[in-house]
Amino acid sequence: MDFKFKIVTFAVERILDQMEQEKIILITNDDGIISKGLLSLVEVAKSFGRVIVVAPDKPQSGMGHAITVNHPLRMHTYSQFEHVEAYACSGTPVDCVKLGIYEVLNRKPDLILSGINHGENTSTNVLYSGTMSAAVEGAMEGVVSVGFSLADFDEDADFTLAQLVVKKVLEWVLKNDLPIHTCYNVNIPKIESSAFQGIKFARQAYAFWEDRFDKRWDQFKKPYYWMTGEFKDLDQQEDTDLWALKNGYASIVPTQFDMTDYKALETFKTQHL
Amino acid sequence: MDFKFKIVTFAVERILDQMEQEKIILITNDDGIISKGLLSLVEVAKSFGRVIVVAPDKPQSGMGHAITVNHPLRMHTYSQFEHVEAYACSGTPVDCVKLGIYEVLNRKPDLILSGINHGENTSTNVLYSGTMSAAVEGAMEGVVSVGFSLADFDEDADFTLAQLVVKKVLEWVLKNDLPIHTCYNVNIPKIESSAFQGIKFARQAYAFWEDRFDKRWDQFKKPYYWMTGEFKDLDQQEDTDLWALKNGYASIVPTQFDMTDYKALETFKTQHL
Repeated sequence: MDFKFKIVTFAVERILDQMEQEKIILITNDDGIISKGLLSLVEVAKSFGRVIVVAPDKPQSGMGHAITVNHPLRMHTYSQFEHVEAYACSGTPVDCVKLGIYEVLNRKPDLILSGINHGENTSTNVLYSGTMSAAVEGAMEGVVSVGFSLADFDEDADFTLAQLVVKKVLEWVLKNDLPIHTCYNVNIPKIESSAFQGIKFARQAYAFWEDRFDKRWDQFKKPYYWMTGEFKDLDQQEDTDLWALKNGYASIVPTQFDMTDYKALETFKTQHL
Repeated sequence: MDFKFKIVTFAVERILDQMEQEKIILITNDDGIISKGLLSLVEVAKSFGRVIVVAPDKPQSGMGHAITVNHPLRMHTYSQFEHVEAYACSGTPVDCVKLGIYEVLNRKPDLILSGINHGENTSTNVLYSGTMSAAVEGAMEGVVSVGFSLADFDEDADFTLAQLVVKKVLEWVLKNDLPIHTCYNVNIPKIESSAFQGIKFARQAYAFWEDRFDKRWDQFKKPYYWMTGEFKDLDQQEDTDLWALKNGYASIVPTQFDMTDYKALETFKTQHL
Protein backbone atom coordinates (compact mmCIF):
# COMPACT_ATOMS: atom_id res chain seq x y z
CA MET A 1 0.00 0.00 0.00
CA ASP A 2 1.66 3.27 -1.07
CA PHE A 3 1.65 6.45 1.00
CA LYS A 4 -0.90 8.33 -1.17
CA PHE A 5 -3.38 5.46 -0.89
CA LYS A 6 -2.87 5.40 2.89
CA ILE A 7 -3.70 9.13 3.13
CA VAL A 8 -6.91 8.66 1.13
CA THR A 9 -7.92 5.65 3.23
CA PHE A 10 -7.30 7.64 6.39
CA ALA A 11 -9.39 10.58 5.14
CA VAL A 12 -12.26 8.30 4.14
CA GLU A 13 -12.15 6.60 7.54
CA ARG A 14 -12.34 9.95 9.32
CA ILE A 15 -15.33 11.04 7.24
CA LEU A 16 -17.08 7.73 7.99
CA ASP A 17 -16.28 8.18 11.69
CA GLN A 18 -17.77 11.65 11.71
CA MET A 19 -20.84 10.45 9.85
CA GLU A 20 -21.25 7.69 12.40
CA GLN A 21 -20.87 10.10 15.29
CA GLU A 22 -23.40 12.59 13.93
CA LYS A 23 -26.63 12.01 15.80
CA ILE A 24 -29.77 11.44 13.80
CA ILE A 25 -32.56 13.44 15.45
CA LEU A 26 -36.17 12.80 14.41
CA ILE A 27 -38.52 15.67 15.30
CA THR A 28 -42.31 15.87 15.34
CA ASN A 29 -45.00 17.85 17.16
CA ASP A 30 -48.79 18.04 17.47
CA ASP A 31 -49.47 21.67 16.57
CA GLY A 32 -48.56 21.00 12.95
CA ILE A 33 -45.54 21.54 10.75
CA ILE A 34 -45.96 25.30 10.33
CA SER A 35 -46.05 26.08 14.05
CA LYS A 36 -43.53 28.41 15.67
CA GLY A 37 -42.83 25.90 18.48
CA LEU A 38 -41.61 23.27 16.00
CA LEU A 39 -39.35 25.78 14.24
CA SER A 40 -37.95 26.83 17.64
CA LEU A 41 -37.12 23.21 18.45
CA VAL A 42 -35.55 22.54 15.04
CA GLU A 43 -33.32 25.62 15.41
CA VAL A 44 -31.82 24.35 18.68
CA ALA A 45 -31.65 20.67 17.69
CA LYS A 46 -29.69 21.45 14.49
CA SER A 47 -26.58 22.16 16.54
CA PHE A 48 -26.76 18.67 18.09
CA GLY A 49 -26.99 16.51 14.96
CA ARG A 50 -28.74 15.86 11.66
CA VAL A 51 -32.40 16.77 12.03
CA ILE A 52 -35.22 15.09 10.10
CA VAL A 53 -38.73 16.45 10.62
CA VAL A 54 -41.89 14.38 10.12
CA ALA A 55 -44.77 16.44 11.50
CA PRO A 56 -48.55 16.65 11.04
CA ASP A 57 -49.80 18.77 8.14
CA LYS A 58 -52.50 20.25 10.44
CA PRO A 59 -53.09 20.72 14.18
CA GLN A 60 -53.37 17.39 16.04
CA SER A 61 -53.76 18.59 19.61
CA GLY A 62 -55.46 16.19 22.01
CA MET A 63 -54.82 13.21 19.73
CA GLY A 64 -53.12 11.25 22.51
CA HIS A 65 -51.63 7.97 21.33
CA ALA A 66 -54.00 7.72 18.34
CA ILE A 67 -52.78 6.00 15.20
CA THR A 68 -54.33 5.94 11.75
CA VAL A 69 -55.45 2.42 10.89
CA ASN A 70 -58.73 2.92 9.04
CA HIS A 71 -57.45 5.45 6.50
CA PRO A 72 -54.31 5.60 4.39
CA LEU A 73 -51.65 8.16 5.29
CA ARG A 74 -50.22 10.86 3.03
CA MET A 75 -46.74 12.32 3.33
CA HIS A 76 -45.26 15.25 1.37
CA THR A 77 -41.83 16.84 1.39
CA TYR A 78 -41.79 20.21 3.09
CA SER A 79 -39.07 22.68 2.12
CA GLN A 80 -39.56 25.57 4.55
CA PHE A 81 -36.83 24.58 7.02
CA GLU A 82 -33.35 25.71 6.05
CA HIS A 83 -31.09 22.72 5.31
CA VAL A 84 -33.44 20.31 7.08
CA GLU A 85 -35.11 17.31 5.46
CA ALA A 86 -38.79 17.60 6.37
CA TYR A 87 -42.09 15.87 5.64
CA ALA A 88 -45.68 16.91 6.33
CA CYS A 89 -47.89 13.94 7.20
CA SER A 90 -51.69 13.63 7.21
CA GLY A 91 -51.69 11.57 10.43
CA THR A 92 -51.18 11.92 14.14
CA PRO A 93 -47.91 12.62 16.00
CA VAL A 94 -47.53 8.86 16.71
CA ASP A 95 -48.07 8.12 12.99
CA CYS A 96 -45.28 10.63 12.28
CA VAL A 97 -42.85 8.79 14.58
CA LYS A 98 -43.71 5.47 12.94
CA LEU A 99 -43.38 6.88 9.41
CA GLY A 100 -40.14 8.62 10.40
CA ILE A 101 -38.53 5.41 11.64
CA TYR A 102 -39.95 2.81 9.27
CA GLU A 103 -40.44 4.74 6.00
CA VAL A 104 -38.23 7.85 5.96
CA LEU A 105 -35.12 6.79 7.89
CA ASN A 106 -35.40 3.01 7.67
CA ARG A 107 -33.50 2.93 10.96
CA LYS A 108 -33.97 4.05 14.54
CA PRO A 109 -32.80 7.62 15.09
CA ASP A 110 -30.49 8.39 18.02
CA LEU A 111 -33.01 10.77 19.50
CA ILE A 112 -36.68 11.63 19.04
CA LEU A 113 -37.89 15.10 19.99
CA SER A 114 -41.44 16.41 20.04
CA GLY A 115 -42.74 19.96 20.37
CA ILE A 116 -42.22 22.62 21.41
CA ASN A 117 -45.92 22.44 22.19
CA HIS A 118 -47.96 25.63 22.41
CA GLY A 119 -49.54 24.91 25.80
CA GLU A 120 -48.39 22.85 28.79
CA ASN A 121 -48.61 19.07 29.06
CA THR A 122 -48.14 18.59 32.78
CA SER A 123 -49.79 15.99 34.99
CA THR A 124 -52.41 13.66 33.48
CA ASN A 125 -52.38 15.74 30.29
CA VAL A 126 -49.56 13.43 29.26
CA LEU A 127 -52.32 10.97 28.26
CA TYR A 128 -54.22 13.41 26.00
CA SER A 129 -51.12 15.01 24.57
CA GLY A 130 -50.06 14.23 21.01
CA THR A 131 -46.69 15.83 21.81
CA MET A 132 -45.98 13.46 24.66
CA SER A 133 -47.51 10.42 22.96
CA ALA A 134 -44.93 10.84 20.19
CA ALA A 135 -42.20 10.74 22.84
CA VAL A 136 -43.80 7.69 24.51
CA GLU A 137 -43.88 5.97 21.10
CA GLY A 138 -40.17 6.73 20.83
CA ALA A 139 -39.58 5.09 24.23
CA MET A 140 -41.54 2.02 23.05
CA GLU A 141 -39.11 1.83 20.13
CA GLY A 142 -36.19 1.98 22.56
CA VAL A 143 -35.09 5.45 21.41
CA VAL A 144 -34.35 8.17 23.98
CA SER A 145 -37.15 10.69 23.45
CA VAL A 146 -38.14 14.05 24.87
CA GLY A 147 -41.38 16.03 24.59
CA PHE A 148 -41.20 19.80 25.19
CA SER A 149 -44.16 22.03 26.03
CA LEU A 150 -44.39 25.74 26.84
CA ALA A 151 -47.19 26.93 29.10
CA ASP A 152 -48.41 29.40 26.49
CA PHE A 153 -51.12 28.62 23.92
CA ASP A 154 -50.43 31.74 21.85
CA GLU A 155 -49.44 30.83 18.29
CA ASP A 156 -46.86 33.61 18.42
CA ALA A 157 -45.61 32.68 21.92
CA ASP A 158 -42.09 33.70 22.97
CA PHE A 159 -39.92 30.55 22.88
CA THR A 160 -36.69 32.20 24.12
CA LEU A 161 -36.72 30.57 27.56
CA ALA A 162 -38.03 27.30 26.11
CA GLN A 163 -35.11 27.18 23.66
CA LEU A 164 -32.67 27.64 26.54
CA VAL A 165 -34.32 24.72 28.36
CA VAL A 166 -34.21 22.56 25.19
CA LYS A 167 -30.49 23.25 24.88
CA LYS A 168 -29.78 22.31 28.50
CA VAL A 169 -31.90 19.15 28.29
CA LEU A 170 -30.26 18.03 25.04
CA GLU A 171 -26.80 18.55 26.55
CA TRP A 172 -27.86 16.40 29.53
CA VAL A 173 -29.46 13.73 27.32
CA LEU A 174 -26.45 13.41 25.04
CA LYS A 175 -23.82 13.27 27.74
CA ASN A 176 -25.59 10.61 29.84
CA ASP A 177 -26.16 6.95 29.15
CA LEU A 178 -29.91 7.04 29.72
CA PRO A 179 -32.21 4.03 30.14
CA ILE A 180 -34.06 3.01 26.98
CA HIS A 181 -37.85 2.69 27.30
CA THR A 182 -37.98 5.94 29.27
CA CYS A 183 -38.85 9.30 27.75
CA TYR A 184 -38.95 12.76 29.28
CA ASN A 185 -41.84 15.19 29.64
CA VAL A 186 -40.39 18.69 29.82
CA ASN A 187 -42.69 21.63 30.58
CA ILE A 188 -41.52 25.23 30.56
CA PRO A 189 -43.34 27.95 32.49
CA LYS A 190 -44.51 31.19 30.89
CA ILE A 191 -42.28 33.59 32.82
CA GLU A 192 -39.53 36.12 32.22
CA SER A 193 -36.12 34.48 31.85
CA SER A 194 -34.94 36.54 34.86
CA ALA A 195 -37.51 34.78 37.10
CA PHE A 196 -36.52 31.29 35.91
CA GLN A 197 -35.47 28.96 38.74
CA GLY A 198 -33.97 26.09 36.72
CA ILE A 199 -35.00 22.61 35.58
CA LYS A 200 -36.44 20.30 38.24
CA PHE A 201 -37.02 16.54 38.06
CA ALA A 202 -40.58 15.79 39.13
CA ARG A 203 -43.33 13.21 39.06
CA GLN A 204 -46.65 13.48 37.19
CA ALA A 205 -49.13 15.30 39.47
CA TYR A 206 -52.56 13.86 40.08
CA ALA A 207 -55.10 16.16 38.52
CA PHE A 208 -58.08 15.72 36.23
CA TRP A 209 -60.38 17.69 33.98
CA GLU A 210 -63.76 18.47 35.43
CA ASP A 211 -65.34 18.76 32.02
CA ARG A 212 -68.22 20.89 30.93
CA PHE A 213 -69.93 20.77 27.57
CA ASP A 214 -70.96 24.03 26.02
CA LYS A 215 -74.18 23.04 24.25
CA ARG A 216 -75.09 25.20 21.26
CA TRP A 217 -77.65 25.01 18.46
CA ASP A 218 -76.87 25.03 14.76
CA GLN A 219 -78.87 26.61 11.93
CA PHE A 220 -81.10 23.49 11.77
CA LYS A 221 -81.86 23.74 15.53
CA LYS A 222 -79.75 20.67 16.18
CA PRO A 223 -77.41 20.60 19.18
CA TYR A 224 -73.63 20.42 19.15
CA TYR A 225 -71.14 20.45 22.00
CA TRP A 226 -67.77 22.10 22.64
CA MET A 227 -65.65 20.35 25.24
CA THR A 228 -64.45 22.72 27.91
CA GLY A 229 -63.84 22.46 31.64
CA GLU A 230 -61.58 23.17 34.53
CA PHE A 231 -58.31 21.44 35.38
CA LYS A 232 -58.41 20.34 39.02
CA ASP A 233 -55.05 19.91 40.74
CA LEU A 234 -55.74 17.42 43.53
CA ASP A 235 -52.08 16.95 44.40
CA GLN A 236 -50.60 19.30 46.97
CA GLN A 237 -47.11 17.78 47.17
CA GLU A 238 -43.97 19.69 46.19
CA ASP A 239 -42.41 16.94 44.05
CA THR A 240 -44.83 17.27 41.12
CA ASP A 241 -44.57 18.88 37.70
CA LEU A 242 -47.46 21.22 38.49
CA TRP A 243 -45.68 22.47 41.63
CA ALA A 244 -42.45 23.02 39.69
CA LEU A 245 -44.16 25.15 37.02
CA LYS A 246 -46.07 27.21 39.58
CA ASN A 247 -42.77 27.96 41.31
CA GLY A 248 -40.76 29.17 38.35
CA TYR A 249 -39.09 25.88 37.38
CA ALA A 250 -39.22 23.92 34.18
CA SER A 251 -40.24 20.34 35.06
CA ILE A 252 -38.80 17.14 33.66
CA VAL A 253 -40.75 13.94 34.33
CA PRO A 254 -39.16 10.59 33.39
CA THR A 255 -42.07 8.83 31.69
CA GLN A 256 -42.66 5.17 30.85
CA PHE A 257 -45.37 3.12 29.18
CA ASP A 258 -46.04 0.19 31.50
CA MET A 259 -49.49 1.08 32.82
CA THR A 260 -49.79 -1.98 35.07
CA ASP A 261 -50.91 -1.05 38.58
CA TYR A 262 -48.39 -3.27 40.39
CA LYS A 263 -49.76 -2.45 43.84
CA ALA A 264 -53.24 -3.61 42.85
CA LEU A 265 -51.77 -6.62 41.02
CA GLU A 266 -49.92 -7.67 44.20
CA THR A 267 -53.22 -7.53 46.12
CA PHE A 268 -55.28 -9.46 43.60
CA LYS A 269 -52.91 -11.88 41.90
CA THR A 270 -53.83 -14.91 43.98
CA GLN A 271 -57.58 -14.31 43.66
CA HIS A 272 -59.70 -16.54 41.46
CA LEU A 273 -62.58 -14.97 39.62
CA MET B 1 -99.26 7.52 62.54
CA ASP B 2 -101.81 4.83 61.71
CA PHE B 3 -100.93 1.34 60.55
CA LYS B 4 -101.94 1.88 56.89
CA PHE B 5 -99.70 4.94 56.65
CA LYS B 6 -96.83 2.97 58.18
CA ILE B 7 -97.20 0.26 55.53
CA VAL B 8 -97.11 2.85 52.73
CA THR B 9 -94.06 4.61 54.23
CA PHE B 10 -92.28 1.28 54.52
CA ALA B 11 -93.03 0.40 50.90
CA VAL B 12 -91.83 3.80 49.65
CA GLU B 13 -88.64 3.48 51.68
CA ARG B 14 -87.94 0.06 50.19
CA ILE B 15 -88.44 1.38 46.66
CA LEU B 16 -86.10 4.33 47.38
CA ASP B 17 -83.55 1.90 48.84
CA GLN B 18 -83.69 -0.26 45.75
CA MET B 19 -83.36 2.76 43.47
CA GLU B 20 -80.34 3.88 45.44
CA GLN B 21 -78.82 0.44 45.29
CA GLU B 22 -79.31 0.09 41.54
CA LYS B 23 -75.92 0.59 39.96
CA ILE B 24 -75.59 3.12 37.15
CA ILE B 25 -73.41 1.54 34.47
CA LEU B 26 -72.03 3.71 31.67
CA ILE B 27 -70.95 1.72 28.61
CA THR B 28 -68.91 2.72 25.58
CA ASN B 29 -66.64 1.03 23.03
CA ASP B 30 -64.40 1.88 20.10
CA ASP B 31 -65.83 -0.27 17.32
CA GLY B 32 -68.93 1.91 17.18
CA ILE B 33 -72.47 1.71 18.51
CA ILE B 34 -73.73 -0.89 16.04
CA SER B 35 -71.05 -3.47 16.79
CA LYS B 36 -71.87 -6.95 18.05
CA GLY B 37 -69.31 -6.69 20.86
CA LEU B 38 -71.08 -3.69 22.38
CA LEU B 39 -74.46 -5.42 22.22
CA SER B 40 -72.92 -8.50 23.87
CA LEU B 41 -71.60 -6.35 26.73
CA VAL B 42 -74.92 -4.49 27.17
CA GLU B 43 -76.81 -7.80 27.38
CA VAL B 44 -74.71 -9.01 30.30
CA ALA B 45 -74.42 -5.64 32.07
CA LYS B 46 -78.21 -5.15 32.11
CA SER B 47 -78.56 -7.76 34.83
CA PHE B 48 -76.18 -5.80 37.07
CA GLY B 49 -77.79 -2.36 37.00
CA ARG B 50 -79.20 0.47 34.89
CA VAL B 51 -77.19 0.68 31.67
CA ILE B 52 -76.61 3.91 29.74
CA VAL B 53 -74.71 3.67 26.46
CA VAL B 54 -72.73 6.54 24.94
CA ALA B 55 -70.73 5.08 22.08
CA PRO B 56 -69.08 6.33 18.88
CA ASP B 57 -71.31 6.61 15.80
CA LYS B 58 -68.51 5.05 13.69
CA PRO B 59 -65.42 2.87 14.23
CA GLN B 60 -62.79 4.60 16.39
CA SER B 61 -60.17 1.86 16.64
CA GLY B 62 -56.64 3.00 17.41
CA MET B 63 -57.82 6.36 18.72
CA GLY B 64 -55.98 5.89 22.02
CA HIS B 65 -56.70 8.62 24.54
CA ALA B 66 -57.64 11.15 21.84
CA ILE B 67 -60.23 13.81 22.65
CA THR B 68 -62.03 16.18 20.31
CA VAL B 69 -60.99 19.74 21.04
CA ASN B 70 -60.78 21.37 17.62
CA HIS B 71 -64.25 20.34 16.41
CA PRO B 72 -67.66 20.35 18.07
CA LEU B 73 -69.21 17.04 19.08
CA ARG B 74 -72.58 15.67 17.98
CA MET B 75 -74.71 13.28 20.02
CA HIS B 76 -77.95 11.57 18.94
CA THR B 77 -80.32 9.25 20.77
CA TYR B 78 -80.07 5.67 19.57
CA SER B 79 -83.07 3.41 20.06
CA GLN B 80 -81.82 -0.01 18.94
CA PHE B 81 -81.09 -1.42 22.41
CA GLU B 82 -84.12 -2.86 24.19
CA HIS B 83 -84.99 -0.81 27.30
CA VAL B 84 -81.57 0.86 27.34
CA GLU B 85 -80.97 4.61 27.09
CA ALA B 86 -78.34 5.05 24.39
CA TYR B 87 -76.56 7.83 22.50
CA ALA B 88 -74.39 7.76 19.39
CA CYS B 89 -71.58 10.32 19.55
CA SER B 90 -69.41 11.73 16.77
CA GLY B 91 -66.27 11.63 18.94
CA THR B 92 -63.76 9.22 20.38
CA PRO B 93 -64.32 6.67 23.18
CA VAL B 94 -62.81 9.11 25.71
CA ASP B 95 -65.18 11.85 24.44
CA CYS B 96 -68.04 9.38 25.04
CA VAL B 97 -67.02 8.85 28.68
CA LYS B 98 -66.78 12.61 29.23
CA LEU B 99 -70.14 13.28 27.55
CA GLY B 100 -71.69 10.39 29.48
CA ILE B 101 -70.61 11.75 32.85
CA TYR B 102 -70.86 15.50 32.34
CA GLU B 103 -73.72 15.88 29.86
CA VAL B 104 -75.94 12.75 29.88
CA LEU B 105 -75.81 11.59 33.52
CA ASN B 106 -74.66 14.76 35.24
CA ARG B 107 -73.12 12.48 37.86
CA LYS B 108 -70.42 9.85 38.07
CA PRO B 109 -71.75 6.37 37.27
CA ASP B 110 -70.98 3.48 39.63
CA LEU B 111 -69.18 1.62 36.91
CA ILE B 112 -67.78 2.33 33.44
CA LEU B 113 -67.46 -0.54 30.97
CA SER B 114 -65.90 -0.49 27.53
CA GLY B 115 -66.05 -3.06 24.75
CA ILE B 116 -66.33 -5.86 24.07
CA ASN B 117 -63.66 -4.99 21.55
CA HIS B 118 -63.35 -6.99 18.34
CA GLY B 119 -59.61 -7.73 18.64
CA GLU B 120 -57.30 -8.06 21.62
CA ASN B 121 -55.78 -5.17 23.54
CA THR B 122 -53.02 -6.93 25.42
CA SER B 123 -49.60 -5.56 26.26
CA THR B 124 -48.60 -2.11 24.97
CA ASN B 125 -51.74 -2.05 22.80
CA VAL B 126 -53.35 -0.54 25.90
CA LEU B 127 -51.87 2.78 24.72
CA TYR B 128 -53.33 2.65 21.20
CA SER B 129 -56.65 1.19 22.26
CA GLY B 130 -59.75 3.38 22.34
CA THR B 131 -61.48 0.65 24.34
CA MET B 132 -58.91 0.77 27.13
CA SER B 133 -58.44 4.55 26.97
CA ALA B 134 -62.14 4.90 27.83
CA ALA B 135 -61.54 2.71 30.91
CA VAL B 136 -58.44 4.72 31.82
CA GLU B 137 -60.50 7.92 31.54
CA GLY B 138 -62.98 6.32 33.95
CA ALA B 139 -60.17 5.62 36.41
CA MET B 140 -59.04 9.25 36.13
CA GLU B 141 -62.58 10.22 37.14
CA GLY B 142 -62.34 7.88 40.14
CA VAL B 143 -64.91 5.43 38.76
CA VAL B 144 -64.15 1.70 38.73
CA SER B 145 -63.81 0.87 35.04
CA VAL B 146 -63.22 -2.23 32.95
CA GLY B 147 -62.28 -2.63 29.31
CA PHE B 148 -63.09 -5.97 27.63
CA SER B 149 -61.51 -7.25 24.42
CA LEU B 150 -61.90 -10.53 22.55
CA ALA B 151 -58.97 -11.82 20.49
CA ASP B 152 -61.11 -11.99 17.33
CA PHE B 153 -61.38 -9.16 14.80
CA ASP B 154 -64.32 -10.72 12.97
CA GLU B 155 -67.35 -8.42 13.06
CA ASP B 156 -69.54 -11.48 13.61
CA ALA B 157 -67.22 -12.99 16.25
CA ASP B 158 -68.64 -15.45 18.79
CA PHE B 159 -68.93 -13.61 22.12
CA THR B 160 -70.25 -16.57 24.16
CA LEU B 161 -67.05 -17.12 26.16
CA ALA B 162 -66.45 -13.35 26.39
CA GLN B 163 -69.91 -12.87 27.91
CA LEU B 164 -69.15 -15.53 30.51
CA VAL B 165 -65.93 -13.69 31.41
CA VAL B 166 -67.77 -10.34 31.57
CA LYS B 167 -70.28 -11.87 34.01
CA LYS B 168 -67.56 -13.27 36.27
CA VAL B 169 -65.57 -10.02 36.23
CA LEU B 170 -68.65 -7.91 37.02
CA GLU B 171 -69.52 -10.20 39.93
CA TRP B 172 -65.97 -9.77 41.24
CA VAL B 173 -65.97 -5.99 40.69
CA LEU B 174 -69.30 -5.46 42.44
CA LYS B 175 -68.60 -7.61 45.46
CA ASN B 176 -65.17 -6.08 46.21
CA ASP B 177 -64.25 -2.65 47.48
CA LEU B 178 -61.79 -1.86 44.70
CA PRO B 179 -59.28 1.00 44.66
CA ILE B 180 -60.38 4.05 42.73
CA HIS B 181 -57.98 5.31 40.03
CA THR B 182 -57.38 1.75 38.88
CA CYS B 183 -59.12 0.20 35.91
CA TYR B 184 -58.95 -3.32 34.48
CA ASN B 185 -57.84 -4.53 31.09
CA VAL B 186 -59.59 -7.83 30.40
CA ASN B 187 -58.65 -9.85 27.31
CA ILE B 188 -60.42 -13.01 26.28
CA PRO B 189 -58.77 -15.64 24.05
CA LYS B 190 -60.38 -16.95 20.89
CA ILE B 191 -60.85 -20.55 21.97
CA GLU B 192 -63.60 -23.09 22.57
CA SER B 193 -65.27 -22.66 25.97
CA SER B 194 -64.22 -26.23 26.80
CA ALA B 195 -60.53 -25.27 26.49
CA PHE B 196 -60.90 -22.20 28.71
CA GLN B 197 -58.55 -22.21 31.73
CA GLY B 198 -60.06 -19.32 33.74
CA ILE B 199 -59.28 -15.67 34.42
CA LYS B 200 -55.73 -14.81 35.42
CA PHE B 201 -54.37 -11.58 36.91
CA ALA B 202 -51.35 -10.45 34.91
CA ARG B 203 -49.09 -7.54 34.12
CA GLN B 204 -48.82 -5.73 30.78
CA ALA B 205 -46.26 -7.60 28.64
CA TYR B 206 -43.45 -5.73 26.95
CA ALA B 207 -43.99 -5.90 23.24
CA PHE B 208 -43.99 -3.43 20.39
CA TRP B 209 -45.10 -3.04 16.81
CA GLU B 210 -42.36 -3.39 14.24
CA ASP B 211 -44.24 -1.31 11.70
CA ARG B 212 -44.15 -1.50 7.97
CA PHE B 213 -45.80 0.91 5.58
CA ASP B 214 -47.47 -0.51 2.54
CA LYS B 215 -46.76 2.22 -0.04
CA ARG B 216 -49.26 2.40 -2.91
CA TRP B 217 -49.98 4.84 -5.72
CA ASP B 218 -53.30 6.56 -6.37
CA GLN B 219 -54.90 7.44 -9.73
CA PHE B 220 -52.82 10.68 -9.84
CA LYS B 221 -49.59 8.70 -9.30
CA LYS B 222 -49.26 10.11 -5.80
CA PRO B 223 -48.19 7.85 -2.94
CA TYR B 224 -50.23 6.85 0.08
CA TYR B 225 -49.36 4.51 2.94
CA TRP B 226 -51.23 1.84 4.90
CA MET B 227 -49.82 1.15 8.33
CA THR B 228 -49.15 -2.51 8.92
CA GLY B 229 -46.51 -4.49 10.77
CA GLU B 230 -45.70 -7.27 13.13
CA PHE B 231 -46.30 -7.38 16.88
CA LYS B 232 -43.08 -8.42 18.61
CA ASP B 233 -43.44 -10.07 22.01
CA LEU B 234 -40.14 -9.36 23.75
CA ASP B 235 -41.32 -10.61 27.13
CA GLN B 236 -40.87 -14.27 27.89
CA GLN B 237 -42.16 -14.28 31.47
CA GLU B 238 -45.24 -16.23 32.56
CA ASP B 239 -46.89 -13.42 34.51
CA THR B 240 -47.95 -11.37 31.48
CA ASP B 241 -51.25 -10.90 29.69
CA LEU B 242 -49.77 -12.27 26.46
CA TRP B 243 -48.70 -15.46 28.22
CA ALA B 244 -52.15 -15.85 29.78
CA LEU B 245 -53.94 -15.58 26.44
CA LYS B 246 -51.54 -17.98 24.72
CA ASN B 247 -52.23 -20.52 27.45
CA GLY B 248 -56.02 -20.51 27.37
CA TYR B 249 -56.66 -17.93 30.09
CA ALA B 250 -58.47 -14.62 29.97
CA SER B 251 -56.11 -11.97 31.38
CA ILE B 252 -57.00 -9.14 33.73
CA VAL B 253 -54.41 -6.39 34.16
CA PRO B 254 -54.97 -3.74 36.85
CA THR B 255 -54.15 -0.55 34.97
CA GLN B 256 -53.34 2.97 36.19
CA PHE B 257 -52.53 6.32 34.60
CA ASP B 258 -49.45 7.58 36.43
CA MET B 259 -46.82 7.26 33.72
CA THR B 260 -43.94 8.54 35.88
CA ASP B 261 -40.89 6.28 35.68
CA TYR B 262 -40.17 6.28 39.44
CA LYS B 263 -36.99 4.24 39.09
CA ALA B 264 -35.50 6.76 36.67
CA LEU B 265 -36.79 9.63 38.82
CA GLU B 266 -35.00 8.19 41.86
CA THR B 267 -31.76 8.09 39.87
CA PHE B 268 -31.99 11.59 38.46
CA LYS B 269 -33.86 13.67 41.01
CA THR B 270 -30.80 15.22 42.61
CA GLN B 271 -29.20 16.10 39.28
CA HIS B 272 -29.04 19.68 38.09
CA LEU B 273 -29.35 20.31 34.40
